[in-house]
Amino acid sequence: MTSLLALDASSSACSVALWMDGNVISRVEHAPRGHTRRLMPMIDALLDEAGIARSALDAIAYGHGPGAFTGIRIAAGVAQGIAYGLERPLLGISTLRALAQGAWQRDGAGLIMPALDARLGELYVALYQGGQGQLDTVMADAVMAPEALALPSCQPGSVTMIGSGVALRDRLSFEVRECVGTTLEGREPEARDIVQLAAIDFASGLITSPQQALPIYLRDQVVSSKR
Amino acid sequence: MTSLLALDASSSACSVALWMDGNVISRVEHAPRGHTRRLMPMIDALLDEAGIARSALDAIAYGHGPGAFTGIRIAAGVAQGIAYGLERPLLGISTLRALAQGAWQRDGAGLIMPALDARLGELYVALYQGGQGQLDTVMADAVMAPEALALPSCQPGSVTMIGSGVALRDRLSFEVRECVGTTLEGREPEARDIVQLAAIDFASGLITSPQQALPIYLRDQVVSSKR
Repeated sequence: MTSLLALDASSSACSVALWMDGNVISRVEHAPRGHTRRLMPMIDALLDEAGIARSALDAIAYGHGPGAFTGIRIAAGVAQGIAYGLERPLLGISTLRALAQGAWQRDGAGLIMPALDARLGELYVALYQGGQGQLDTVMADAVMAPEALALPSCQPGSVTMIGSGVALRDRLSFEVRECVGTTLEGREPEARDIVQLAAIDFASGLITSPQQALPIYLRDQVVSSKR
Repeated sequence: MTSLLALDASSSACSVALWMDGNVISRVEHAPRGHTRRLMPMIDALLDEAGIARSALDAIAYGHGPGAFTGIRIAAGVAQGIAYGLERPLLGISTLRALAQGAWQRDGAGLIMPALDARLGELYVALYQGGQGQLDTVMADAVMAPEALALPSCQPGSVTMIGSGVALRDRLSFEVRECVGTTLEGREPEARDIVQLAAIDFASGLITSPQQALPIYLRDQVVSSKR
């Protein structure tokens, strides 16, 4: 059996999930300041529920961002540490891709625009296409002002917008707003979606060593490149 | 052989240390924003240098604060994760105690007041006494305005003040200022001192499970108690 553990602390929620040959069990808690103290007991409870030992895990995955800086660092730290201690590979998964995975798998959405409020008036945003058994990247994760977002040509109403970024929808260009049909505002990245994506990446060999894992702060990279 | 690994990211520096039956090797890097990416390679390099496998570690220690919130969380996360993955106990060590340990062991100080700038005009401060082969707590770690600090009666010039808090010395009361003889301002908590203290705690059985480990934010606790 292949077993993968995923954890996420990129939002005000904190979640863990376990993937066992396609079966997923997961837990979510809303503890805006308690991520550090909640993650480990949640992982323990999940492994207990599944009846598997931590040493039976084949890889560790985490939501590498974009999202709340501190939460991403905590999740990256814990995931790195566990992977390092167990001598297992680590998988960093995009939180925007995880949002899209949820919209595709649970809501049956096709063209999906995950968007998170990046503060300072900006959006973390991407575009994914759910197709025949997989989710494809149409536009890679980026940070930008809502007004600056341009989508490939799309049918009016064909795009599902998901995440806290929906609150900034009125600032999207007219063309982009026309494309957005459905909005799913109250969603946050979750470990149950991260673990599904991690299973795909793990099967494809898209893994990194714990030592190389980095949290992804889209904005930091943008700021750095301007220095 | 007993082997302990310690890590600290509570200041602008990032450090790791390995204790092997009393022998200590350590590394320090100054990377204010690079803690997440530096800790794991530094740990790897240290274990390589010592020629021991991570599975040979008996316990993991980290600087649990007080200090920079994000750095403390990162260190706690990585330490928790490694301890969890290796199924080893975890030891959280006070960063003020670590400062005092350095002043006692390397500078031969007796009565030691570690003090860190806690921002908002306050100090993280404590008082330790270096004695016959051990460092004793005289006044426990606390956060307060420099003006509010009162020490047990002490000889003029008998106290060594160490840490970034030295910069706020002029705001100490006249009585406390009179007690301070030596100041060591440029010091930051280091893993090489944390690992020494961890070895003492480990020998005494003062360990916690990774699930129970918490970063110590003195100010958060004070704020919480006022709510």
